[in-house]
Amino acid sequence: METLNPQVKAVEYAVRGPIVIKAGEIERILQEGGKKPFTEVIKANIGDAHAMGQQPITFLRQVVALCTFPELLDSPSFPEDAKRRAQRILQGCGGRSLGSYSASQGVDCIRQDIAAYIEQRDQGVPSNWENIFLTTGASDGIVSILRLLVSGEGRARTGVMIPIPQYPLYSAAIAELGAVQVNYYLDEDNCWALDVHELHRAYQAAKQHCQPRVLCIINPGNPTGQVQSKKCIEDVLHFAYEENLFVMADEVYQENVYAPDCEFHSFKKVLYEMGPEYFNSVELASFHSTSKGYTGECGFRGGFMEIVNLDPEVKAQLVKLLSVRLCPPVAGQAAMDVIVNPPQPDEPSFAQFHKEKASVLGALADKAKLTEQILSAVPGIKCNPVQGAMYAFPQIFIPPRAVEEAKALGMQPDMLYCLRLLEETGICVVPGSGFGQREGTYHFRMTILPSPEKLKVLLEKVRDFHINFYA
Amino acid sequence: METLNPQVKAVEYAVRGPIVIKAGEIERILQEGGKKPFTEVIKANIGDAHAMGQQPITFLRQVVALCTFPELLDSPSFPEDAKRRAQRILQGCGGRSLGSYSASQGVDCIRQDIAAYIEQRDQGVPSNWENIFLTTGASDGIVSILRLLVSGEGRARTGVMIPIPQYPLYSAAIAELGAVQVNYYLDEDNCWALDVHELHRAYQAAKQHCQPRVLCIINPGNPTGQVQSKKCIEDVLHFAYEENLFVMADEVYQENVYAPDCEFHSFKKVLYEMGPEYFNSVELASFHSTSKGYTGECGFRGGFMEIVNLDPEVKAQLVKLLSVRLCPPVAGQAAMDVIVNPPQPDEPSFAQFHKEKASVLGALADKAKLTEQILSAVPGIKCNPVQGAMYAFPQIFIPPRAVEEAKALGMQPDMLYCLRLLEETGICVVPGSGFGQREGTYHFRMTILPSPEKLKVLLEKVRDFHINFYA
Repeated sequence: METLNPQVKAVEYAVRGPIVIKAGEIERILQEGGKKPFTEVIKANIGDAHAMGQQPITFLRQVVALCTFPELLDSPSFPEDAKRRAQRILQGCGGRSLGSYSASQGVDCIRQDIAAYIEQRDQGVPSNWENIFLTTGASDGIVSILRLLVSGEGRARTGVMIPIPQYPLYSAAIAELGAVQVNYYLDEDNCWALDVHELHRAYQAAKQHCQPRVLCIINPGNPTGQVQSKKCIEDVLHFAYEENLFVMADEVYQENVYAPDCEFHSFKKVLYEMGPEYFNSVELASFHSTSKGYTGECGFRGGFMEIVNLDPEVKAQLVKLLSVRLCPPVAGQAAMDVIVNPPQPDEPSFAQFHKEKASVLGALADKAKLTEQILSAVPGIKCNPVQGAMYAFPQIFIPPRAVEEAKALGMQPDMLYCLRLLEETGICVVPGSGFGQREGTYHFRMTILPSPEKLKVLLEKVRDFHINFYA
Repeated sequence: METLNPQVKAVEYAVRGPIVIKAGEIERILQEGGKKPFTEVIKANIGDAHAMGQQPITFLRQVVALCTFPELLDSPSFPEDAKRRAQRILQGCGGRSLGSYSASQGVDCIRQDIAAYIEQRDQGVPSNWENIFLTTGASDGIVSILRLLVSGEGRARTGVMIPIPQYPLYSAAIAELGAVQVNYYLDEDNCWALDVHELHRAYQAAKQHCQPRVLCIINPGNPTGQVQSKKCIEDVLHFAYEENLFVMADEVYQENVYAPDCEFHSFKKVLYEMGPEYFNSVELASFHSTSKGYTGECGFRGGFMEIVNLDPEVKAQLVKLLSVRLCPPVAGQAAMDVIVNPPQPDEPSFAQFHKEKASVLGALADKAKLTEQILSAVPGIKCNPVQGAMYAFPQIFIPPRAVEEAKALGMQPDMLYCLRLLEETGICVVPGSGFGQREGTYHFRMTILPSPEKLKVLLEKVRDFHINFYA
């Protein structure tokens, strides 16, 4: 431990932190016949849809299975459109095998499909496939870009602006790279909206001790679930333009918008609409993933990023850096291809694909509503609407005696709360302190992924626990 | 470029470096109907078996396809043993889906299968499955361990001892982490053997300016193809024990041993046989992969590492670090499971599996022999036997006029040689300077992966080119 990399020591990742390790221990006790006041642990700590019972999209799995075992291309039980997709992907692979390394940027034809998808999503804003990089989940892309951008010493060290609350991949990567974390606070009283004045404040304060070079945005928000308005995105991009910041837009929840008055706007499209002065100058990387949306294919570790306005020399450095790790998993690339190139209306799988997609997204929208309704009715819990993504991040009021007890135990009050919740009910959620929160406020993050029946039980147990804890 | 991370700038990775980019350009010219003195580019730069036409192992692909699309479990066209493997893997996955995140260390039952495989490989030396970590290819494991071990400033900075020639993942990771690269030279005149006196020399020299903490070994060797004797491994482990070095044993080519007088000995087994004083103290990490061996499944990015004698607190730090990236691709984990848990003699797939495995390894052994025979007969080329792995690393004699010309062009002489070879013959190999070599000597690395017919043509073209170039 003495000689361990101090930047590794500084890393924290609450989503799989101590509370989740504790949940695993309790699960083992239950499996071995031990007694607890509940019969199962419900893991609402991580956005892992299939683990919570969500079924895979049939067409996606058909295409990946066909790519994996091409003898199935002769099987009459697979639809023609799935076979066409698989054949096309295999033609892009060396030796027509998923077992070959792809180019470090990913398979060419998949990059082309992604560019076409982005153009359609952004209503015609051009996308150059040579700016598309497949990644090992979105996390890999985010860390790769940060790795490029961190430099300098002392006051010249790169500052990375991140929202608070944030997804802790960001703080972990910043710690590991030894960059400076610059917090800007989302406005909880305004449904976790991003206020550009707060960006200015954070930037000016940070300038005293580092060089802010990067602005990270998560939209729809994780853990906060807000969906940014177009006006807000314009303000953010204008600010980035003025201050010459590299914008990292984490848009992995772009398909997960539930609130009827909200709409997903990509940073790229908004930048384009602001005119060439902006579109030709602001450096932007946008990230997407197979793990979220309606597919929830976390295990395949698929994802991509689109980079805009990267200096060609820097882009060459990025390619070089990625080439050391050879390539992202090709099965995950194939899964990504299905998401950006789904069945068309004249294809045999169209109806089933859309039925399955609508079913997943419809259920998520219902569960987002249910979560807000039940939690916001609990005295001592304040829960904003879950406009998008897959999480609620309610504020919990923790009485002073519990705060003192936590201090005496050397832990955060919300950690004490979540540990008690786990021990009394078997529900595993993550303390707000793992994501960041305003001093003196306490929260937890829970996913909305359990089945509707299970989610209802879970929320009612949280309600009863909270009332009891508070008393 | 000015503010780019200087450690990223310092990274080099020749296996996908400038010569490979040039090869891609030439391929595009050929595709567009351009004229060259050859009709195809042969990429012998990277150990990418399937891209060179090697067929996947049927059983492996059946298991992964069944995991991917479990409806196939009802299909009579899949054998029962493949179905049993798939069912077992799926039972280890959240929601019985390959689309769930696994634990950051990998799926438990796959870790258990790996431990059982290691015990069998090492003739009973115990392996604890809780010390097995699945990884995203071996590269990911290697970089993760290095990341833990790099610390200190100035003369206290971690030195990492690597063989020269080396696989450039090591130098790239060392540059990126800002560690100190400590070279020890393999003995080309002795079939690239590792001489422990050279380890002592390199260690003592490095002590003057850094703190050597890590010793990396590649066995069988990449790019050099040697297989270490048991005696040599004992010497290395004794040295590591004396100097308190963390040993990283890159054993991804453990199945790839061709020379009849050579045998693979794992570092773990040799350490065990040296007695408890050694086995309970030397810190060791060993790496394996789905990408090499007889499967060549590079695209799945499967791999694992076994760690021995890691301090429990440090191990907890490793788990934490890995958890930030969530998990290795689960399809790659499934592929790894097949390798460590192949069909047994009483199972229906046994005969075909072993036929396919023997066919791949037999062909590789033939090609290793062929490569050595043809190259070592060329005047001005010196080629050691390819005892194992997948590469030849012949020494090429470059005449002084060519060395001068290269200098005038600002490039390494072996880079000039390889560029000319590519332009005149379409053959893509990697200059020795990308792997490291003794000052004033020149080499290239080529894979032995093309089909026997193609390999013969390739070698004859290299011979003719060399004679011509030399003249």
